[in-house]
Amino acid sequence: MTPEDTMLTKTTVPVLCPQEGATEIPYADMANALRALTMDAVEKAKSGHPGMPMGMADAATVLFTRFMKIDPMRPHWPDRDRFVLSAGHGSMLLYSINHLLGYADMDIEAIKRFRQFGSTTAGHPEYGHTLGVETTTGPLGQGLTTAVGMALAERMMNARFGDDLVDHYTYVIAGDGCLMEGISHEAIDLAGHLKLGKLILLWDDNGISIDGSTSLSTSTDQLARFEAAGWDVFRVDGHSHHALIDAIAKARNSKRPSLIACRTTIGYGAPNKAGTEAVHGAPLGAAEIEGARDRLGWPHAPFEIPAGIRSAWEQIADRGREAREAWDDRLRASEKAQAFETAIAGQLPADFEEKLLTYKRGLSESAPNVASRKASEMALAVINEATELTVGGSADLTHSNLTLTKGLASVAPCKYAGRYIHYGIREHAMSAVMNGIALHKGFIPYGGTFLVFADYARGGIRLSALMGQRVIYVLTHDSIGLGEDGPTHQPIEHLAMLRATPNLQVFRPADAVETLEAWQIALASEGTPTVLALSRQNLPTFRTEHTDDNLSARGAYVVRKPQKWRDVTLLATGSELDIAFKAAELLAAKGVDAAIVSMPCWELFEKQSEDYRRQVLGTAPRVAIEAAARLGWDRWIGDRGRFVGMEGFGASAPAPALYEHFGITPEGVVAAACDLLTCA
Amino acid sequence: MTPEDTMLTKTTVPVLCPQEGATEIPYADMANALRALTMDAVEKAKSGHPGMPMGMADAATVLFTRFMKIDPMRPHWPDRDRFVLSAGHGSMLLYSINHLLGYADMDIEAIKRFRQFGSTTAGHPEYGHTLGVETTTGPLGQGLTTAVGMALAERMMNARFGDDLVDHYTYVIAGDGCLMEGISHEAIDLAGHLKLGKLILLWDDNGISIDGSTSLSTSTDQLARFEAAGWDVFRVDGHSHHALIDAIAKARNSKRPSLIACRTTIGYGAPNKAGTEAVHGAPLGAAEIEGARDRLGWPHAPFEIPAGIRSAWEQIADRGREAREAWDDRLRASEKAQAFETAIAGQLPADFEEKLLTYKRGLSESAPNVASRKASEMALAVINEATELTVGGSADLTHSNLTLTKGLASVAPCKYAGRYIHYGIREHAMSAVMNGIALHKGFIPYGGTFLVFADYARGGIRLSALMGQRVIYVLTHDSIGLGEDGPTHQPIEHLAMLRATPNLQVFRPADAVETLEAWQIALASEGTPTVLALSRQNLPTFRTEHTDDNLSARGAYVVRKPQKWRDVTLLATGSELDIAFKAAELLAAKGVDAAIVSMPCWELFEKQSEDYRRQVLGTAPRVAIEAAARLGWDRWIGDRGRFVGMEGFGASAPAPALYEHFGITPEGVVAAACDLLTCA
Repeated sequence: MTPEDTMLTKTTVPVLCPQEGATEIPYADMANALRALTMDAVEKAKSGHPGMPMGMADAATVLFTRFMKIDPMRPHWPDRDRFVLSAGHGSMLLYSINHLLGYADMDIEAIKRFRQFGSTTAGHPEYGHTLGVETTTGPLGQGLTTAVGMALAERMMNARFGDDLVDHYTYVIAGDGCLMEGISHEAIDLAGHLKLGKLILLWDDNGISIDGSTSLSTSTDQLARFEAAGWDVFRVDGHSHHALIDAIAKARNSKRPSLIACRTTIGYGAPNKAGTEAVHGAPLGAAEIEGARDRLGWPHAPFEIPAGIRSAWEQIADRGREAREAWDDRLRASEKAQAFETAIAGQLPADFEEKLLTYKRGLSESAPNVASRKASEMALAVINEATELTVGGSADLTHSNLTLTKGLASVAPCKYAGRYIHYGIREHAMSAVMNGIALHKGFIPYGGTFLVFADYARGGIRLSALMGQRVIYVLTHDSIGLGEDGPTHQPIEHLAMLRATPNLQVFRPADAVETLEAWQIALASEGTPTVLALSRQNLPTFRTEHTDDNLSARGAYVVRKPQKWRDVTLLATGSELDIAFKAAELLAAKGVDAAIVSMPCWELFEKQSEDYRRQVLGTAPRVAIEAAARLGWDRWIGDRGRFVGMEGFGASAPAPALYEHFGITPEGVVAAACDLLTCA
Repeated sequence: MTPEDTMLTKTTVPVLCPQEGATEIPYADMANALRALTMDAVEKAKSGHPGMPMGMADAATVLFTRFMKIDPMRPHWPDRDRFVLSAGHGSMLLYSINHLLGYADMDIEAIKRFRQFGSTTAGHPEYGHTLGVETTTGPLGQGLTTAVGMALAERMMNARFGDDLVDHYTYVIAGDGCLMEGISHEAIDLAGHLKLGKLILLWDDNGISIDGSTSLSTSTDQLARFEAAGWDVFRVDGHSHHALIDAIAKARNSKRPSLIACRTTIGYGAPNKAGTEAVHGAPLGAAEIEGARDRLGWPHAPFEIPAGIRSAWEQIADRGREAREAWDDRLRASEKAQAFETAIAGQLPADFEEKLLTYKRGLSESAPNVASRKASEMALAVINEATELTVGGSADLTHSNLTLTKGLASVAPCKYAGRYIHYGIREHAMSAVMNGIALHKGFIPYGGTFLVFADYARGGIRLSALMGQRVIYVLTHDSIGLGEDGPTHQPIEHLAMLRATPNLQVFRPADAVETLEAWQIALASEGTPTVLALSRQNLPTFRTEHTDDNLSARGAYVVRKPQKWRDVTLLATGSELDIAFKAAELLAAKGVDAAIVSMPCWELFEKQSEDYRRQVLGTAPRVAIEAAARLGWDRWIGDRGRFVGMEGFGASAPAPALYEHFGITPEGVVAAACDLLTCA
């Protein structure tokens, strides 16, 4: 079977047929167009990374010409193939391709404005900012791991909607950097385990990293490594179009994810700098570009692409349009059309809110004394029953995070109909895979680990926020209240770290009602990821009077009014609200009238009107209570305020002993308040 | 060659000779002592992890009995073998061993107080808190990677001081969790590359993780994976003493790091729970413990160890003492004794401070206009010349971080005399390896990456702080000032994240003089890691009047006094100090008298007297300027203050355009000040 045959048996879309006996030339020219645009754009910007696009131009050309199924006029077509440029610094490769494919926001002016303010040609590809960018890349390894999430989502959607509606590939270009980052291990381990056969990774194996030869820092046999993780592996000359066609065709046929090691020359074509680190991240310079034009046989002026080459690229778009139209027909004919579109839109059922409110009413009545992680599990039982959009998981802490509810089957190798993902002990991959699932569309992913291990997932959490994805982090064991596991497991700085992150909602609910409210908001926040910081220890229910209003949506609110007027305001979140209530009683006995403000979400409180904020915070002196670092609290307690919390790391002991030791107690709060008020 | 022969040819210390024909019995009893202590301690604490210690008791017994070279009476003996319990949740394994070896702080009362406040038997092993704990573990993968740093430091010290003084092994016990975490890839990749033959990893291959069978989430062939990374690999029955002896002996002879996959039963001995996740992280319960005692043939009362078994363990300590005494003799006889002891003490040369002051004087005179990353390189040129303790490196950003100075040779496979480590694109490993180098002693490690990629190294940075290690993070490209690379590369929340971390000094120096001062403090801070946040863009020198005083050591100081009295105080760090100066000039033209406070290090400012702080901050309204998130600044600007900085993520464009767009300009500062003062 020739490669072409192989391909034809696999792909359901027409493929571009190269002219008889002329295969090599058009490919080379098409690739050189990418190289030329890259050199010129980087040179004009006086900034950027020419090496990778020039090295991988051949592989990208083959991939797009022969295999990619995309319609540039419908960039969000759900059944398009996904292309992820994990080596995001090589953004000019993608922009050049998208320019030649005719994406609406990528005309030649955009290419000329590479890396300039407001242009679609940002330094690294940014999702939502530029059409045809499937995910934001740049931090190495993220693209690859996000692609695992996309490939998994594809299989999971396929399990629900069948081959007619969901049947696409996920292609990734990654460099040595992506493969050296730890997250790559988590990604390939998970992808290999789950047998994501439609995931194909093209590794730009150029032997060069920024410091110089990769032999400075690695000697890993990558092919053996990927094989060990359950991948199919291929090695090709990354400048041989035939070899690339053959390998990609074979990879498409594999039941396992595939690595294609493309042996390339970084900066291919540059007469002096090719094959060296000098070509990685700086403009080539006029002389070197001239030499490269010469060597590549590219006589055209900067930013000029001959019509014949343009037309060859445009055929890819034509093929994609045809495939998309055929798919549109299939969708129209499908009885699952509406369900499919609702899923892709990520739309919760009409009766969803009502079911949650009914549950909330019951909570206020039953007033359970449960850990907020347990309250989250209880909420999830209702949520997962009320919608099929949610897909849960945990980084191997299911029974601690309480993320698995009844009836959620596990996603397993070749069994993708489930709704629960065992991410393994891979927090970083979990975050990036959830990003990939959300970006793919069709699901709302949530995943659990301990709050302290947000550290391990920082890279992915930041991208959830930067890309504005509805990804929900269930982070339990949220303070010294976890007790005996000690300081390595007790978060201190983590709330501050997450609160400082733009476009991330951080909830620390104080009881079961606030936990439910936080879930309501998280699920409704289509453009913002959410962190739920949840307790290990039991918490009483304060919100025993039901209201349909979501009070947590205000970020902070008065949960205990003063008897007459406020002498002092106690601010608290999560498990420390209970301490505030007990302190208020002690203060009352001293004749001090305390208001209590619950602050489940700072970010939402910041968004309220100044009037509301002033009213909630009041003018009386304030004491904040949170078993975490102080950083950030001064904004709320003000110049005269006091903070009762952690000044250093925690310790290993039962939780009550720790609260006592660190002075995070009703008595500690009373002392702080009295220090402010000079009460007796 | 029998295993015993192998061993005898390798080890330079006498090994315990088991009684003729009675090998198995004492080993089994010795191992059961560990199991019994574990079961009893966890049961008493009502908390803890019995599964791993019971599963790995045999391997640990063999390792300590036959191979470990330690002297419990001299726990810090520099040439001891290092034992790292990477699976830190199995802390009772280590505490049981240390108890039986007679460590001074590990009597039976300590074992009985497992996980109680103030006891040496913390939930996870904590360095500095408990003798014989080489590094703090618990966050999975950290121990393994820290051990790579120790093994590397051993070779580097060996290259300097020879076999007589430095010749020890680093042993690690790691579980499935450690091997699933991404950091493990970075660790084994680097260790394999550097051919750290004296690193031996015992993998507790029990097939169980917290969620259940590891087959839920992984199918990686670990042996093939490690082989791909250049390791020697062995597979043994983890309960067969003979097989373990044989494998460890062979591993010690290898020129490559070794993985020994110990196939074990988690919770070995527990009649019902063994081999299941139920035994991982919860007390067994009285009935199960009784059954285990029965099955193991351990009739002794809780916490009771028969004298014969105690004595067998004590022989290990005796052997260690003899080895240590022989080493003491060699040290006394060595002409390198003083240099060795100075290195181990981490003591800078007597003339070190003077050299730096001379350089600092020159800086104030020449007043260079350089990026603070460049200023850091200039400082390092002096520092690396003045002391041999420093060992540099970068996560493949050497030419961006400017961490390599003239004359620093690279550390390379089998060539360990260098002082510069190419960590590869492995930020997480870099942080943990630096921890290992610092813990090993002999060097002061510093390593570079971009500030934004502190995200990728969070796990290791936190442990630097928790363990109080002199590790220096050179984090360049510290704001939107890096320009075109865009929001994925522009730190926003990172300063807040690092400042919120206890026991971490975060410097953001404003010019070359402050950069040098930050280096002075970092190098002198033996119990605190330091972050240097450094600019990509050039900064003028403000500190043109020399003083020997390290003004940065005060954390913040007035760098521009008002002409008459303060109308307003401008607070700034790093590159934004320049903006403050320009704003002050504009304000002066409006008749507004501004003081400027440079705040290179919040943590040190917090430590100053309240008087000093009040004096520096003044009573006039304050405007803070920092191209980063606001979180934390309210503490310094107070209720009436203004903040000029970032509210969201950055963007891709040349730096000046970004500062303009985000309003972080002299004009923006003037507007904020005038808003406060209602100036015209």
